[in-house]
Amino acid sequence: MKEKKISEGKTKKIFSTTKEEQLILYFKDDYVLKSGKKLAITNKGKSNGLVSAYLLNYLKSYNVATHFIDQVSEREILVAKLDMLPLEVLVRNFAAGILAERYKVKEGTELECPIIEYYLKHEENEDSMINEDHLISFGHASSDEIKEIHRLSSKINAILRDFFRRRNYHLIDFRIEYGRQNDRIVLGDEISMDTFRLWDLTTDTYLDLERFKRNREKMAEIIDDIKSRLLMESS
Amino acid sequence: MKEKKISEGKTKKIFSTTKEEQLILYFKDDYVLKSGKKLAITNKGKSNGLVSAYLLNYLKSYNVATHFIDQVSEREILVAKLDMLPLEVLVRNFAAGILAERYKVKEGTELECPIIEYYLKHEENEDSMINEDHLISFGHASSDEIKEIHRLSSKINAILRDFFRRRNYHLIDFRIEYGRQNDRIVLGDEISMDTFRLWDLTTDTYLDLERFKRNREKMAEIIDDIKSRLLMESS
Repeated sequence: MKEKKISEGKTKKIFSTTKEEQLILYFKDDYVLKSGKKLAITNKGKSNGLVSAYLLNYLKSYNVATHFIDQVSEREILVAKLDMLPLEVLVRNFAAGILAERYKVKEGTELECPIIEYYLKHEENEDSMINEDHLISFGHASSDEIKEIHRLSSKINAILRDFFRRRNYHLIDFRIEYGRQNDRIVLGDEISMDTFRLWDLTTDTYLDLERFKRNREKMAEIIDDIKSRLLMESS
Repeated sequence: MKEKKISEGKTKKIFSTTKEEQLILYFKDDYVLKSGKKLAITNKGKSNGLVSAYLLNYLKSYNVATHFIDQVSEREILVAKLDMLPLEVLVRNFAAGILAERYKVKEGTELECPIIEYYLKHEENEDSMINEDHLISFGHASSDEIKEIHRLSSKINAILRDFFRRRNYHLIDFRIEYGRQNDRIVLGDEISMDTFRLWDLTTDTYLDLERFKRNREKMAEIIDDIKSRLLMESS
């Protein structure tokens, strides 16, 4: 089914398939530090592929429209081709990263209510937070689409937050991307250790992979551990 | 009526009055450059006081709730004391300043539709753009208050944009502040050459005062000219 590579990002490759409207996402082992340095983390691609497939499928069971169709291999998922919005949506439950810094909130503080932030995707500029008016004025999305993105992101957060809590994690924050499919807003991209940050309540540890950058074996171990706990069937 | 100075900012002093619920805003001649350097601009305070009084009163005539009560002198206005929100609201009709830089839009481009941005007011950090979710989560405003602030800001923009257009200016952008009065959202602060940027269609000049910082006489001249054109009664 896999035909040819049509693009390659930091952590994934995208392949066309024999069907025009379907793609294969291939999860790489690369982890990219904030500094831009790339590390190869053993089995990261497999774990991210498995977790992403599992969570996208899980969201589907709650009637969230996603691009997920099927798992092809541990590292590969078959997805519907979307017309992607040039946008990252960041959902925060606890203060971390740039939010903690910028608004002087102590890292790890639980937010009164979840915060949804929008960032324009462009190569160079990491910090390009925008609001709903920008999205409308720049022609990236309609007012109704933005309402739907906000509604969906809140719903996804409620579902995932609960899912992680039952596995003894706090879901600190995560970023997701959306696209259009027949004029409908659909969740795209991945949900994996590259896109969420957790607090492990079992060991009381903040699992931001960046923090373990000096120890690639530890990173591999953390990723494997998260995968195992997330995919255990009992919870 | 004026009692004692209760605070002093970059461009205004605030005085208590014999009435507990009323204040006097006094407009200074100081202009503060982005570098932090202060310049004294002849008659700036008078012009800003006159323009602010005129525009706040003008908005009142369109049923916009403002804190404005009366003009006391050219430099002074009597206002209702509000419980101010720690927030600057920036309304943009044309790309300028940080928006042009950050999103790579050419300075002076007319936006498809106006953009309303929120910034947290704190001393040190100039760039603290936030969105409606932050305001709610940090407890700065309720969801209904934010809707009202957005609605009012759009309305004020429509009124002022038209007012300036009739005087041959494009209203590039302006910042305003709000407060609460008996649980109602009310426009506070000032509307003056310190808070808006114009494009003069007569001379095709972008009137960002910062651009004329090397020439204080020119700045005084521009401010006086804007005041005269804004306050002419014929339009």
